[in-house]
Amino acid sequence: MAEQSLTSRIGIDGGGTNCRFALVLDGTRYDLRRGGANASTDMAGTIATLRDGLSSLAQEAGVSIENLSSIPAHIGLAGVMDAAMGAEIAAQLPLRCVRVEDDRRTAMSGALGHSDGCVLGIGTGSFIGRRAAGVERVIGGWGLVLGDVASGAYLGRGLLSRILESADGLFPPSDLTQQVLAEIGSTAAIVSFAAQAAPADFARFAPRIIEAAHGGDPNARALVIDSAQQIAQRLRHLGWEAGEKIVPIGGLAPAYAPFLPPEMAENIGTPEGTSLDGALTLAATVTAT
Amino acid sequence: MAEQSLTSRIGIDGGGTNCRFALVLDGTRYDLRRGGANASTDMAGTIATLRDGLSSLAQEAGVSIENLSSIPAHIGLAGVMDAAMGAEIAAQLPLRCVRVEDDRRTAMSGALGHSDGCVLGIGTGSFIGRRAAGVERVIGGWGLVLGDVASGAYLGRGLLSRILESADGLFPPSDLTQQVLAEIGSTAAIVSFAAQAAPADFARFAPRIIEAAHGGDPNARALVIDSAQQIAQRLRHLGWEAGEKIVPIGGLAPAYAPFLPPEMAENIGTPEGTSLDGALTLAATVTAT
Repeated sequence: MAEQSLTSRIGIDGGGTNCRFALVLDGTRYDLRRGGANASTDMAGTIATLRDGLSSLAQEAGVSIENLSSIPAHIGLAGVMDAAMGAEIAAQLPLRCVRVEDDRRTAMSGALGHSDGCVLGIGTGSFIGRRAAGVERVIGGWGLVLGDVASGAYLGRGLLSRILESADGLFPPSDLTQQVLAEIGSTAAIVSFAAQAAPADFARFAPRIIEAAHGGDPNARALVIDSAQQIAQRLRHLGWEAGEKIVPIGGLAPAYAPFLPPEMAENIGTPEGTSLDGALTLAATVTAT
Repeated sequence: MAEQSLTSRIGIDGGGTNCRFALVLDGTRYDLRRGGANASTDMAGTIATLRDGLSSLAQEAGVSIENLSSIPAHIGLAGVMDAAMGAEIAAQLPLRCVRVEDDRRTAMSGALGHSDGCVLGIGTGSFIGRRAAGVERVIGGWGLVLGDVASGAYLGRGLLSRILESADGLFPPSDLTQQVLAEIGSTAAIVSFAAQAAPADFARFAPRIIEAAHGGDPNARALVIDSAQQIAQRLRHLGWEAGEKIVPIGGLAPAYAPFLPPEMAENIGTPEGTSLDGALTLAATVTAT
């Protein structure tokens, strides 16, 4: 193979459910998808998925894996906790020009393209970011036990907590709390469920909470409004200014729009591209190590 | 053995760390202690501990285990989630007159004796109760994931959360947050710790948080004052009235006294007795099933 074109790049967006790969080579883009990868919970599986995806990319582009090794690559990966973990993963890949980090900056880069603005990354987990004059800052993304404010898991756990507080008489029950209590069976069963539940198990209640909030259910509204206020507080803390674009990404983020303060709600925008596009964009800034 | 005296009773106070047994027989009280018992996490071990303790009580009193079977017994046990679970345990004990329930009422009965008042049951977990005109009501005791507001585990988890929020720039760091961050090593290590931590692991930070709050550390003060406000809110919700006694029990409860509103702080009392005394008191109200 001849020298790499300057625009040759590899981007990978690795999440718990899916791992998306893209290769731009001599002006052509190749895309493929593999299974989930979370570096915190399954390092070996993550490495295997990444190596497998890279091999398949090379095959699809009709080159050898060695031909990919000098192409700059950016990998945004769920569960990468710090730079050391990123470097550990990078060292096990057949790439010489590779940056491995968590998936937040990749998501922001995709959502904002080259413009300034804020990003609400809210699905099962959550983070909030802002790019101003090209400088990025991110809040959150720490996981449910200590963070993930306003996430689907946070809302779901909040609902179960509220059902127990309602059993204690701290809040009147509502249709939603009574339905979910009846479905799970008892306050004891709720406590047992919560003791075993993964974030995704809590997050499964989020769509119903949003729907009930729209329908006026007071407990659902209290939960959603509290989360929306925490989102607004974090946006202001990051320096959000009136008129500045706010881009929701992740399954739950768009649902918060009607619950945000009007001056924020009217600046909700749409993503410029996907997280995989973001990874390709960031690959252009990777240099050989 | 002759007929049981009317005052013969068995009381058991079973917690995660220790299980305390008492038998009152013919005017003499026999006490002993065995290892921890938590019915939620180890049902078989709990049954074994209870049976073993009862055998030893009989032996110590110089009677056979059959002689104990008609003596009324009250067992307050950590991890008993509902009446069904209590009945399941009761059925496996060599007692015919036995009530098995969670440990909150036992603790209240010991702390208040026969008087009215409020109880702050705050250690690794938490509950708040009130007895007014003999009627008892309890809030909390649901465990850390969904409740245990103001508990040691809640405070410790709150501290770790605050360290991450401080890393995000939401709060200025303080001596305490910087020390604990340095000890654990990194924000990534805090997230890993939290993902594995049991309530007792979080609760280990509570004494330092209380101490730092007294020393004026702003993050520690914010955590302790927030918890104290939630305690006060729950006391008011239970109907606490000015002048009414508030009895702190559990390792952490007394530490909150100086952070409560003055009208509450000046009514802090001391426990009338232990939870084991409470179990003996409640045994008097048990009838054969």
